[in-house]
Amino acid sequence: LFRLQQQLQTQPGSLPFDEILYCNIGNPQSLGQQPVTFFREVLALCDHPDLLKKEEIKTLFSADSISRAKQILALIPGRATGAYSHSQGIKGLRDAIASGIASRDGFPANADDIFLTDGASPGVHLMMQLLIRNEKDGILVPIPQYPLYSASIALHGGSLVPYYLNESTGWGLEISDVKKQLEDARSRGIDVRALVVINPGNPTGQVLAEENQYDIVKFCKNEGLVLLADEVYQENIYADNKKFHSFKKIVRSLGYGEEDLPLVSYQSVSKGYYGECGKRGGYMEITGFSAPVREQIYKIASVNLCSNITGQILASLVMNPPKASDESYASYKAEKDGILASLARRAKALEVAFSKLEGITCNKAEGAMYLFPQICLPQKAIEAAKAANKAPDAFYALRLLESTGIVVVPGSGFGQVPGTWHFRCTILPQEEKIPAIISRFTVFHETFMAEYRD
Amino acid sequence: LFRLQQQLQTQPGSLPFDEILYCNIGNPQSLGQQPVTFFREVLALCDHPDLLKKEEIKTLFSADSISRAKQILALIPGRATGAYSHSQGIKGLRDAIASGIASRDGFPANADDIFLTDGASPGVHLMMQLLIRNEKDGILVPIPQYPLYSASIALHGGSLVPYYLNESTGWGLEISDVKKQLEDARSRGIDVRALVVINPGNPTGQVLAEENQYDIVKFCKNEGLVLLADEVYQENIYADNKKFHSFKKIVRSLGYGEEDLPLVSYQSVSKGYYGECGKRGGYMEITGFSAPVREQIYKIASVNLCSNITGQILASLVMNPPKASDESYASYKAEKDGILASLARRAKALEVAFSKLEGITCNKAEGAMYLFPQICLPQKAIEAAKAANKAPDAFYALRLLESTGIVVVPGSGFGQVPGTWHFRCTILPQEEKIPAIISRFTVFHETFMAEYRD
Repeated sequence: LFRLQQQLQTQPGSLPFDEILYCNIGNPQSLGQQPVTFFREVLALCDHPDLLKKEEIKTLFSADSISRAKQILALIPGRATGAYSHSQGIKGLRDAIASGIASRDGFPANADDIFLTDGASPGVHLMMQLLIRNEKDGILVPIPQYPLYSASIALHGGSLVPYYLNESTGWGLEISDVKKQLEDARSRGIDVRALVVINPGNPTGQVLAEENQYDIVKFCKNEGLVLLADEVYQENIYADNKKFHSFKKIVRSLGYGEEDLPLVSYQSVSKGYYGECGKRGGYMEITGFSAPVREQIYKIASVNLCSNITGQILASLVMNPPKASDESYASYKAEKDGILASLARRAKALEVAFSKLEGITCNKAEGAMYLFPQICLPQKAIEAAKAANKAPDAFYALRLLESTGIVVVPGSGFGQVPGTWHFRCTILPQEEKIPAIISRFTVFHETFMAEYRD
Repeated sequence: LFRLQQQLQTQPGSLPFDEILYCNIGNPQSLGQQPVTFFREVLALCDHPDLLKKEEIKTLFSADSISRAKQILALIPGRATGAYSHSQGIKGLRDAIASGIASRDGFPANADDIFLTDGASPGVHLMMQLLIRNEKDGILVPIPQYPLYSASIALHGGSLVPYYLNESTGWGLEISDVKKQLEDARSRGIDVRALVVINPGNPTGQVLAEENQYDIVKFCKNEGLVLLADEVYQENIYADNKKFHSFKKIVRSLGYGEEDLPLVSYQSVSKGYYGECGKRGGYMEITGFSAPVREQIYKIASVNLCSNITGQILASLVMNPPKASDESYASYKAEKDGILASLARRAKALEVAFSKLEGITCNKAEGAMYLFPQICLPQKAIEAAKAANKAPDAFYALRLLESTGIVVVPGSGFGQVPGTWHFRCTILPQEEKIPAIISRFTVFHETFMAEYRD
């Protein structure tokens, strides 16, 4: 990839394409998505609070960004955005996030349960460190999965216990399969401690049905598992008939309280319509843990002092965006709706295009930022891959890159049912580039199939 | 401490003091130190680049902050401060940092050797993860030490091999003692892999003499040790006769090249005169590692995607502050010199005051942000501590807190020669509070000694 980037710059015209089309990483702003103005206004004012003393800012900033920045600074001890905070994050910002969660779910949330983190990843590592003592401790992880989970489990020396999402039911989570995998692991002496659910799914893009979520929660309670809910795509919903329900809401709707189920919910400023990956903001909300365990979590969090304050502020903003009565509301809503509607159109266009191709089936992207189509590769292609010492899906993705400049991630990076082949394609390239991606992809795929058709 | 904070708020007047005086943490802005204006101007403009299109900013921002923000945005692919960067950090910012290092040292530096991190701590963890395979891998760490090192070694399952700094020579590092400890560890089957040096020292505040640094480097080369140089206090020098020399410069001055010595140098935006702890910016510069090891370092760094971009930008700024020809230079220099001169006066005042007290000896704070006085506690106090089930220095620190509201950290948190007792006191409370701290401390100490004198 790096070699191709170099070649495009140094010898333009020497490749069959004139730009690399990145469909590999969930990094919206790297592909031209603009940040939401209100959020950036508040961040700028908090970074340089002296501005708030100047008359001239009234022509440069919205009235509510000014008042929000003042509110936020008032929550920070000494108004010091350059000081280490409490290791869970600034208390006032956690209060704001808890109130955002409460109004999302209709159930109370508590600032003491919030741990602000540099993106969601450090929170995942923290819980793995807590849960895994040795290779006999297992974590149930969906396959396909976002590879952060396998990496973190490996890093902490535990055992990944896979369960398969059912592609034929739109990547549904079948409790019967999870139960089978759990029992199988237990019979091998693995102490299975937690279940990871990614909803909306990465790389699979599904949004779990509410009834499915109820079953998952009951299952975790019955089996004594910690539920680790990766909910970083909670704002990215494109299917009209689907809604995001947090697992916290599901748990409370079942009447379960603190004593019933240990639950961790992850959120990040990197995803959603905001896509602020570079700010490294996020939080985890932990409920249902005993006091000594919570203390242990706090101790681990303290080792790195605190997460970055800009990310902390942004996490409080995305959980409390402008309200209808605020000056910024109209433009904020236009930006948000514009981004989400465009993502939905891109998801649809790519899904339709992939589904038309010979040997490709593609589930809907109901949410998140990805499609994960299955390719039925001809035997000849599989043999050619073998001869090239590559996995068949990696062979396909490499050929795609070399002929079109389109970058996707082979399914083997996420795990898949053995003998099936997939690739993950983001829906993030700017909308005007989608037709070119589709036509180049189509031509490539037809040529590839013509070459290798059995 | 928390209980006392609460009590001060809910029942003012019920305690023998009316405010808590924090001398425990190196967190300057939490105690009122103001951020450097130029740095914050640039951060605000990078956070909200739309401002750069507006005429009005010319009255609100310095000309060089505007041009610097434009330069920085031009270094960032797509000007996207909200995108994940390369896992080592944005290439253009690493170039700027390398050029800052080169002009500091007079020896070349390379962007490929720079890894931007969220503060210095993640870089320390990363190297420990790389160096430590099991409990038979040892790391030489100074005693007293900043407890990040002991925590990180424990976290990664290695062995801490202590060497003692010599208090009677101003916390000098004696190669003969290091060698003794190294040989002793080797005789116990420990594979000693690295030596940690903290210069300027934390908690000890010394600045290593240049000749001492030469000896350390030669020692590491001869013994095949990785040198981990914690240089986060490089801008905090108060002794007229001392200068900071980076270990990179020392290594190169000896004529050693890449093949001679693996060296890691840590820097952070949290310390210096800027004290931007909350921004979580920092970097490590790695030289002298083989290509496969560098690749492994890159792989570990990639697991968390990248460090936060605000911290990355700030790291490039502190290594390239305004120059004499820049509009901001005069005010920047006044802010910087004002902060450093005031810190030097505070360090001196506290050192003089501690040294006057019965049973206390206190080395100079030549650098960093700390004094680490030794207290010779009367036998009766030691017995009272034992009866209270506390370490004697912890007993002293607790009594100090309860009678004066002054918070210091007992020496046992950092390690000390067995049978000696210390405390760490920062020099960070605002200058106008120093006289009150000194007089309260003096009264407390005299009362304490009167109570326990043998």
